[in-house]
This record gives sequence, C-alpha cells and structure tokens, in this order.
Amino acid sequence: MSAVKLPRLVITAGEPAGIGLDLCAQLINHHLPADITILCDINVFAERLIMLDATQSTIKINQKLRKIEGHTKASALISTKNKHLHFMHLPAFSPVIAGQLNAQNSRYVLNMLDVAINGCLNGDFDAMVTAPVHKGVINDAGIAFTGHTEYLAERTKTPQVVMMLVGGEGESMLRVALATIHLALKDVPAAITKTHLEQTIRILHADLIAKFGIKNPHILVAGLNPHAGENGYLGREEIDIINPVLAKLRLENMYLSGALPADTLFAKHHLATADAVLAMYHDQGLPVLKHASFGGGVNVTLGLPIIRTSVDHGTALDLAGASIKSSKINHGSMLAAIKLAIDIANHSLNKVR
Amino acid sequence: MSAVKLPRLVITAGEPAGIGLDLCAQLINHHLPADITILCDINVFAERLIMLDATQSTIKINQKLRKIEGHTKASALISTKNKHLHFMHLPAFSPVIAGQLNAQNSRYVLNMLDVAINGCLNGDFDAMVTAPVHKGVINDAGIAFTGHTEYLAERTKTPQVVMMLVGGEGESMLRVALATIHLALKDVPAAITKTHLEQTIRILHADLIAKFGIKNPHILVAGLNPHAGENGYLGREEIDIINPVLAKLRLENMYLSGALPADTLFAKHHLATADAVLAMYHDQGLPVLKHASFGGGVNVTLGLPIIRTSVDHGTALDLAGASIKSSKINHGSMLAAIKLAIDIANHSLNKVR
Repeated sequence: MSAVKLPRLVITAGEPAGIGLDLCAQLINHHLPADITILCDINVFAERLIMLDATQSTIKINQKLRKIEGHTKASALISTKNKHLHFMHLPAFSPVIAGQLNAQNSRYVLNMLDVAINGCLNGDFDAMVTAPVHKGVINDAGIAFTGHTEYLAERTKTPQVVMMLVGGEGESMLRVALATIHLALKDVPAAITKTHLEQTIRILHADLIAKFGIKNPHILVAGLNPHAGENGYLGREEIDIINPVLAKLRLENMYLSGALPADTLFAKHHLATADAVLAMYHDQGLPVLKHASFGGGVNVTLGLPIIRTSVDHGTALDLAGASIKSSKINHGSMLAAIKLAIDIANHSLNKVR
Repeated sequence: MSAVKLPRLVITAGEPAGIGLDLCAQLINHHLPADITILCDINVFAERLIMLDATQSTIKINQKLRKIEGHTKASALISTKNKHLHFMHLPAFSPVIAGQLNAQNSRYVLNMLDVAINGCLNGDFDAMVTAPVHKGVINDAGIAFTGHTEYLAERTKTPQVVMMLVGGEGESMLRVALATIHLALKDVPAAITKTHLEQTIRILHADLIAKFGIKNPHILVAGLNPHAGENGYLGREEIDIINPVLAKLRLENMYLSGALPADTLFAKHHLATADAVLAMYHDQGLPVLKHASFGGGVNVTLGLPIIRTSVDHGTALDLAGASIKSSKINHGSMLAAIKLAIDIANHSLNKVR
C-alpha cells in the first residue's frame, strides 16, 4: 500500500466584513485530516485571533513570514496546534470593519476566488471550500455577479453546473440537487426545458459516481407542479418535458424515479431508497434540507473540473467580529463543507493512484 | 366544575375502494376520548372486519341494527371493545371491490360527505374527520370536484378557506398553512394578490386563536421567490404585495414575521419561535411537513363554520383490503387527525360552557 496522501484544501474566507473570518478562526482548534490553506487578509484575521487569544489563551500569533510556494511575499504563518493549517495573506484593498460592507473590497473578494480556482486548476490544491460572499456589495461595485456557483462555472469555462446541497448524517443524510437555482418563481417553468433537464441529470448522475463513489445512483426526480401535475390536471410540464427526459435517460440504464410529487418524495421512507433528489427549483428542495441539516448543510458544485464545497449560509454581518466566547456563530456548516471536500478529494486521489 | 362532555366526531370512510375502510377497521382497537361515528358501507366494512377477526380474534360482528338518532334505517352496530365507536350504514350504489375504482359510487362518496357536513352544521356532531377520496374517479363520473377542502367551502357557503397541515409532536410540532393550494406552478404568482393574501392571514390568525387557543400567534410568512426575492433581484412580489399586506396587518397588532426566505424560515431554530408558517404554495410548504411528520400529518381546514380534519395522504388503492396482519397501511395520520379534531372540539366546547 502506498503512503496516505493528505488532500490539500484551500479555503476562501470570503466577504471580509462577514463571518467568514470568524469561521476560519474557529477552525484553528480542529484537527482535520487534510493540509489546509486559508486565504484571507491576515491583518484583519489577526485582530480577531487576538480576541480569541484573550478569551481562550490557546492561540499565539507568530509574526514571522513563511514561504508558501508561488506566494512568497503575501504569505504568513500563525502557529497553531494544527501544523497542517496555513494562512496565505491576501491584503484587502480598503480597511475592513466587521459588519460593515465596503464596495472597495469587492474586487479583493473575487481576486481571492481567482487564487483558489487557479490553485485548484493547476494542481496546487485538491479542493476549494468557500466561506460566504455578499452578492449585493459586489454588484454595488459595478461587477455583475450572481453567485459563487455561476462565477466558478465562468472561470473554469464550464457551460453548465449543478448546485447540490448535502445535509444530515448517517441514515438521514440527504443530497438535494436543483434543476434551477436563483430565478424568480414566475421564471421557473420556462427554464425547465428538455435540453437543460437532460444535461442537469447527466451531470448529477456522473458526479454521484465520480465524486461520491456511488455505483448505480438512484435519483428521485420531483415534478414541477403540486402532486407532479396530477395527470395533467395541475400542469403539463411533467407529461411534456420531465417524463420524456426520464424515459430517454432510463434507456442508458440510469436509475431514475419520477416525476414524483415533491411532498411524497421527501417522506423519509422514500428518501431511504435513494442516493439523491433532484428538485425543480430552489424552494421546492432547500427548505427540507435546511430543516434536516441543523445548520450543518453543505453546498457542492457539480459538473466543474475542480472540487468545490461551500457553507450553505450567508455572511451574517450582524454576527461578525464578536469574541469567540460571546459569538453566536455556528460553524457546523463550515466543518461539514471541509469534511465533504476531504471525502471527495480522497475519493479522487484514490482513483488517480 | 361541570361534567366533561365527550366530543362527538363523525368520520367519513371516503372512497370505498381505498384504504379509508382499512383505517377505520384499525381504529377499533383504540380507546379514543370521544364519541365517534363512522360513516361507511357497513357490508363492505364487515367483510374487512371478518378478515380482522380471522387474524386477531378480537372483533365480533353484531348484525343487530341499532337506532342512531335521525338515521334509524341506515344504521348498524358492530360490537367492539370501545363502546363509544358507532357505525352508520350508508350503502354504496354499486358493489365495492378493494383497489378497484368505480365511478358509479362517486355520488355515494359525496353523499357521505353531505351527511357529515349537515350533521356538523345542525349540531349532531362537533367535528368531522375525513378519510381520503379519489378526485379522478369523481371527475370521471362527470362531477366537478377539486378536493375536500373546496367542497366543504362550497357546501358551507364559505367564500374563502385556508388549508393547514399539522405534523410532528411536542417541540417539533409544525403547522404549515398555504396561501395557494392546487394550482399549476405557473399560475401561482398571479394568484398571490393583496386581497387574497390579507384574507388568508386573517383566517389563519383568527383560527389559531379560536381553534388552537393561541393568544397572540406568531406567524412566519414565506416570500414567493427564492431568498424572498433578495431585495427585488429575484422577483418583486415581496416588495409589491406580501410586505405591504404584512405592514397593514401589523397595525392591528398581528405578530407576523416576513416575508422570509423559505429555506431560512424552516430551519429549526426559526420554527421554534413561531406558532405557524404561511407558505405561498403547495411545494414550498408541504415537503418539510411530510418529512418531519413521519406519516402522522393532519390536514385541517381553517375558516369553516365547522371543524374538519383529515388524513394527509391519498386512497392508496394498492394497499386496500389486505388483512390486518399483512397490511402495510400506516394509520398514524388517521389517529393524529382524530386527536386533533378532539382537541379543537374540546377547545370549542369549553368556550361554549
């Protein structure tokens, strides 16, 4: 047997005024089975670490710079109990105040993503994990931006990606992929085309095999309409679009159930038979996931040439910057995102070896 | 203190080829704190009871007819361990075979509902509980019928009713009302008007007080769009319709939160602060409820002059008619529907006294 290779993860701390840095600070006390580099404005981060130190006395700031391949000048080491945790200094463009958005730092946030994406593409990292960014302030800076998922697709030249949320543990683990994501409800029906749906299912099916190691994944596909249209009485998209696509893909031996009524589908005895659910739109699939995952949900982007997981929550500006002792921040989703990235990376590394 | 008055419930066994009769048969072994009359085709029911007898040896059929006020000729008694369980014979129009729909019995199913509704309206019963009917076969008989809820509204001359589902127990109890019910998804946005939404919230608020005994109910109202429209970036219905209605009703001291993103709203720590959720449409609200209620969800119609609860599932034709021993039928929802009807009826009876 070959020696175990530690997967190399890169974490983007995201919006510097949000809770991304707090989540990264909370990570320091965890011993994760990976080599983890955190991209952040180390000055801002150090201030929060000092707060951490004041309350817990376990963290010391080491001002000595350490060389990290290719980023010599902008790197720094903070000594922690975990020798596999590194910090790469990416200086913000404008001073950062916790809780206060600043459009002058929007480009900084995207640059941070670019460093992580390029690192994954050129093999410096095996996977990236993203803390939340704030869409509004990026748009306020005059930059068109609809989300991490879409940005990653564009930067990796991927024509279509699929957003999947993973939550819960053990038997109650739930994987919910979405056929459409951030669309006004009125625009959803027209976006469910045969071509788009077929490609979505192909990506989901392929990545359940390639990234999750499931041999013959069973996917429950929801209808668009209540009761999956009830034989056309409540809408025809199941008859005209969804069911024909499923029939076509079943000819390739994909194990697909549907189109199913969304409420029936999410009953636990149904879920127990499946590896993943495909919901037709955001609020059909994510409420159950958030309800079941107790703040430990993970967002994973399928279809990319790189591995990317993310927390499933926002920047929570009102909670940013508090001391660890008084913090109300739940880092369950961040930890789960890191663990899932490690799992997927290990699976991919094992295949390569 | 006055003597405790037993609430009088009437149960409609619903589609005679479906599992309604099986559910009623399973009830016989329960001792419920109410005086319960079951409306059914007693001949069909007796056949299934004989099966019950063959496997459990606890049930005996007593062929002697018993007089039930106002329904002398069509009533029958089956002796059971529970002396408060009565059966009222309503003969089907055509022979019934378990699992086989027969449009000749569609009018029979509606007549059964009429007997229950009239009994509630004239004070013979305090509440009605409905087993599932089959919409398709009623429509096949040439009768326009969209569901129990709409039929009850029409027969009681109620201009608007609200469908609410109740599931789970104790701290994880969940009440989810719907602003729209059985509509194709594409027709949902136009159905969310200010007038309709205001009236929906008024009915929900009033019945949480009157039927559930909650003094100042806290209602979480979902947005129509993902992320509740994200300040208009993902749809304007929150800004143009939902938020103005909430602002207006708050002036009457209603405790309303929203419009909230549906996925955030259903996180457990949010739900813990609330008495009910108002979802904008079927598949935004019911998947979580079905997921959380383990087959024990109850459908309750708000806004009616009578009390009505129902199971939250369909006729399950494939499961109907099996012996108790081999039956895969889960009667959790039926029991929960009866218990909720008793609770609401007791609450109303207490107020009257």
